[in-house]
Amino acid sequence: MQEEFFRLEHVDAASGKARAGRIRTDHGEIETPVFMPVGTQATVKTLPPRDLLEAGAQVILGNTYHLYLRPGDALIRQAGGLHRFMSWPRPILTDSGGYQVFSLAELRSLKEDGVRFQSHIDGSYHFFTPEKVIDIEKNLGADLIMVLDECAPYPCSREYAEKSLALTLNWAKRCKAHFESTPAVHSHRQFLFGIVQGSTYPDLRRQSAESLIELGFDGYAIGGLAVGEPKTMMLEMTELCTEILPADTPRYLMGVGKPEDLVEAVARGVDMFDCVIPTRNGRNGTVFTWEGKLVIKNAAFREDFRPIDERCGCYACRNFTRAYIRHLFQTDEILGLYLASLHNVYFYLDLMRTVRQAILEDRFAEFYRQFYDRYRPDNQTVEGRGQG
Amino acid sequence: MQEEFFRLEHVDAASGKARAGRIRTDHGEIETPVFMPVGTQATVKTLPPRDLLEAGAQVILGNTYHLYLRPGDALIRQAGGLHRFMSWPRPILTDSGGYQVFSLAELRSLKEDGVRFQSHIDGSYHFFTPEKVIDIEKNLGADLIMVLDECAPYPCSREYAEKSLALTLNWAKRCKAHFESTPAVHSHRQFLFGIVQGSTYPDLRRQSAESLIELGFDGYAIGGLAVGEPKTMMLEMTELCTEILPADTPRYLMGVGKPEDLVEAVARGVDMFDCVIPTRNGRNGTVFTWEGKLVIKNAAFREDFRPIDERCGCYACRNFTRAYIRHLFQTDEILGLYLASLHNVYFYLDLMRTVRQAILEDRFAEFYRQFYDRYRPDNQTVEGRGQG
Repeated sequence: MQEEFFRLEHVDAASGKARAGRIRTDHGEIETPVFMPVGTQATVKTLPPRDLLEAGAQVILGNTYHLYLRPGDALIRQAGGLHRFMSWPRPILTDSGGYQVFSLAELRSLKEDGVRFQSHIDGSYHFFTPEKVIDIEKNLGADLIMVLDECAPYPCSREYAEKSLALTLNWAKRCKAHFESTPAVHSHRQFLFGIVQGSTYPDLRRQSAESLIELGFDGYAIGGLAVGEPKTMMLEMTELCTEILPADTPRYLMGVGKPEDLVEAVARGVDMFDCVIPTRNGRNGTVFTWEGKLVIKNAAFREDFRPIDERCGCYACRNFTRAYIRHLFQTDEILGLYLASLHNVYFYLDLMRTVRQAILEDRFAEFYRQFYDRYRPDNQTVEGRGQG
Repeated sequence: MQEEFFRLEHVDAASGKARAGRIRTDHGEIETPVFMPVGTQATVKTLPPRDLLEAGAQVILGNTYHLYLRPGDALIRQAGGLHRFMSWPRPILTDSGGYQVFSLAELRSLKEDGVRFQSHIDGSYHFFTPEKVIDIEKNLGADLIMVLDECAPYPCSREYAEKSLALTLNWAKRCKAHFESTPAVHSHRQFLFGIVQGSTYPDLRRQSAESLIELGFDGYAIGGLAVGEPKTMMLEMTELCTEILPADTPRYLMGVGKPEDLVEAVARGVDMFDCVIPTRNGRNGTVFTWEGKLVIKNAAFREDFRPIDERCGCYACRNFTRAYIRHLFQTDEILGLYLASLHNVYFYLDLMRTVRQAILEDRFAEFYRQFYDRYRPDNQTVEGRGQG
């Protein structure tokens, strides 16, 4: 008997929502809740794969739009797939490219059949259809792949949201049909995720989730959030979705978010996260601690010979001081970007490990209190999506 | 009985010049001939210390001028010295700052007492005397430290060279006196190197070497080369110096050079090298192989799924292809700078390990022939000095 793709291991008794589970792929298992570092262009920015493994990364994300443009999915197919191309032995998830087409590309025109766009790099014209995106994702060979969707902007009129959702559902159907009717390119299995859209309209979200469930996917993503809406709205939409989505499939909240957003979303039944914040903030000199963020470049840290976070077990915290890392930023040294990125990714991974352990031991509520006793969230907006 | 600072282990029988030795410091031994990666601003650019250790780096270099300006030698002293500040457990060598004052700083004015200059960063005024430089180097706490010297430009008039040499000898004397008459700042020993100058004038080189030997230093550097002179001239001056310098002290050819330059200098009795070429070339997308240099960014490598060098054992070559590294450069990904730098540093270290083994086994001439059978030197200029 083939083992199931996702096994729900435990639901926190008190909350009845926070979940611990296990995703099985041919590149290994993923323990959830999980944070997936973003490897936009076949690299998690500044971090060698072995350092990601050491930090405990279980799965990373690749961006289909970027990889399609450079180096091209044909080249990656020729290299033996994305795992071999970038020397990452564990699971990979690729998005569909939809988000980047709508946020990054020039002069896009949306049609029933797909979306025409100009490359943000050289202005060349391209056309993504649901079928084309599945072909690209098969060439890339990620373990977990996404259907093509339109990520509606925020705010978004009811009319636009309805039209967008209809298109996105049609694309999801076509993606699934094409995924199932075409042969595999690489020898390992791929699992297809549907993406719930519907902007901030509860009934559209519900309609989206129910229609996708009827089509049947290996997992379900919650898309169209972390695009500028208030945090309460993001959490409300998330909870609405997790209440509908089947318990025995993984739930992936796309592009979210700050540490406190992850904690809140786990509390509402989300299993998977990706976000550029740890790597992008790292490169900008902002680092996370269990007490909140620090702008490590600040003069306040000039003579601070403590690690970024005394409680952290990452390579940066075991070996370097705030004073040293500040010096690296002051002098534009790449090692600073590396150490801050490595620490931040470790922090996110460690946060999810801690959350998971708390869920397994039925003390998520205790974890939640302790987290907020120490951690200072910085504001109530939702940051999130973009390049890794 | 205290063990000697330098032990000459073996001189290649056939050449009678190429040497293998061992330098002993309180941070461990250094097997020579040795290449020292340049860590200008308390970091070997892009490379975490543990990766340098893995690559086999035995000793790295820090630049006094840069560290004095940022973060300041007082801060590094407060941090427990440069080793602790940058988390590098093995030996460090610091230059005197003289080279950067003359090549990088603005509006310098040279006086008998020292050199006044403006910081290239913020235009602030500073004054380096021989005594001040020793104080800074004591604060930094490198194991091997250099006297203040003037690195004369090339070409250089006889008159300028004579004056410069007189000044440099006087400074060497004052450095030694100050070094010996002031207390240690850190608990480990420091060893002082004199620097042979004299431009391209054989008699001045001779005078310089003999005067320094008379003063007596732990080691001797050959300075003022790799500043634009023809390669034949560089090698001639080097050989002239090694013939005079005592056999029982280490000889350090500053700022040299390309792989073939190192081989040639070893053949003439040099023990120690530093150069920014491996790291700077790495960041520019040029990598070294046993067949010569490759510009890894070139389209020729788009579909080249071989490692940079099939014979190389570095992390980059064990895990990544030319096609992948080219992609990283095409997409401005920092991991590309890291992998190319790591490979190049490994290549230089491996070259010196191979040279050393050949010397110990009295087959340096065989190594030399085999090296040139494969390796294509790219031209006859001497590249070298600058920031790591």
